[in-house]
Amino acid sequence: MYTTRIYYQDTDAGGVVYFANYLKFFEKSWFEHLLSIGISIPEWEKDGTYLIVKTVTLDLMEKLLYGDTIYVKTSVKEVRNAYFVLDHTVLKDNRVTAKGQTTMVCIDAKGKPKRMPEAFRASLLKPMTG
Amino acid sequence: MYTTRIYYQDTDAGGVVYFANYLKFFEKSWFEHLLSIGISIPEWEKDGTYLIVKTVTLDLMEKLLYGDTIYVKTSVKEVRNAYFVLDHTVLKDNRVTAKGQTTMVCIDAKGKPKRMPEAFRASLLKPMTG
Amino acid sequence: MYTTRIYYQDTDAGGVVYFANYLKFFEKSWFEHLLSIGISIPEWEKDGTYLIVKTVTLDLMEKLLYGDTIYVKTSVKEVRNAYFVLDHTVLKDNRVTAKGQTTMVCIDAKGKPKRMPEAFRASLLKPMTG
Amino acid sequence: MYTTRIYYQDTDAGGVVYFANYLKFFEKSWFEHLLSIGISIPEWEKDGTYLIVKTVTLDLMEKLLYGDTIYVKTSVKEVRNAYFVLDHTVLKDNRVTAKGQTTMVCIDAKGKPKRMPEAFRASLLKPMTG
Repeated sequence: MYTTRIYYQDTDAGGVVYFANYLKFFEKSWFEHLLSIGISIPEWEKDGTYLIVKTVTLDLMEKLLYGDTIYVKTSVKEVRNAYFVLDHTVLKDNRVTAKGQTTMVCIDAKGKPKRMPEAFRASLLKPMTG
Repeated sequence: MYTTRIYYQDTDAGGVVYFANYLKFFEKSWFEHLLSIGISIPEWEKDGTYLIVKTVTLDLMEKLLYGDTIYVKTSVKEVRNAYFVLDHTVLKDNRVTAKGQTTMVCIDAKGKPKRMPEAFRASLLKPMTG
Repeated sequence: MYTTRIYYQDTDAGGVVYFANYLKFFEKSWFEHLLSIGISIPEWEKDGTYLIVKTVTLDLMEKLLYGDTIYVKTSVKEVRNAYFVLDHTVLKDNRVTAKGQTTMVCIDAKGKPKRMPEAFRASLLKPMTG
Repeated sequence: MYTTRIYYQDTDAGGVVYFANYLKFFEKSWFEHLLSIGISIPEWEKDGTYLIVKTVTLDLMEKLLYGDTIYVKTSVKEVRNAYFVLDHTVLKDNRVTAKGQTTMVCIDAKGKPKRMPEAFRASLLKPMTG
């Protein structure tokens, strides 16, 4: 959940948001969403649990222009032992203009995949089970 | 086809290449690949044909570090009337460290999808048919 | 005037905010500051007046880390016929951690410098004269 | 010393290179220049010496467009005990289109300023004394 205006830095010479920058919107949105369900990524890092992105999909449906205001929404789609999947949606005036998915893997300080800590997993699952 | 070193600007506080920056490597690689098969995107733009990205997939397999040298390779996977698909592969020391796909659509100066010009299409198809 | 958290995308492998990204914070801050004093850059663009950056200075005093929250403050320092100067300050916990200056020039749609429109200039000057 | 084409990722909706991206060109150029005079930043990092940017100046003289090819040149301007200064010049068709300066400080792994190692300093000075 992240709201931002589109600034020059987000755009390219085509006059629209540069495609790679959608992934930056996604990162801001997942940081804020995870925080809102009780997961502070920086706190977990102090505890030796880091997140990395394993796969990404992105689908662009409507262009975004300089000065537009967008709302990015993230939700937890799937939680497994070794990874979890996040859905991201970009909205402008209540229309979906782009969407995507990221698969996230937990790693330790040395970059080795590790089992998701139980408290982390519980926080991810809580909003899904209501 | 694009070779680059990994600079600080490509990395993040996790010590590795920031995931969104892979899409920037892809863009540089497809620009150079299309040019090598006879398609100069800036020239086609002067002629009223622009390319936009419609979908992206990205799969990260091995982390990249500051100072690494990578080789990014693009190939045309599919050519349809309205769009074409590019495959991108990131290599380090001859190992594939990431790969992805982008679907590209031709638009006119007003942003409306347009039929791919015949010469553009022929250039895309030539290396595929050998 | 712009508040943001520091995300991975802002950092580099040194573990701190990548130096070039401070200029992106400045852009967001000047957009919001100008808007707050009555200057919508996107609206002026529809009217044929564009802003470009001519010079930049940046001074980094204290590092910023992933997860930090910063406040960026912009003020108008100088207004001349052909350009104006903005001061930017980055604060964390009320300490100045970086500061900079940008000189902005008005141009027309063809990129030629133009005299600053009178209403634009008046909006810039009003908060200075109190 | 770094040559690159201007890609979409370097530009903004104004149709030109986004001002902050010049600093990214500078970073690539100083990495390559230092390497060419015997200073590999990644190697020095393994040895516990890191570089951070302390101050930046940037002066934009001529716009750069998508598809342009630029040449970025870095030279050592000044070497002191605690820091050194680099000059950066962006050229297109042998015309200077932008220039800037960065002041670089040596720090240790904990981020504390440290005296420049003697071999590092000697490498910086050698091309200056010719």
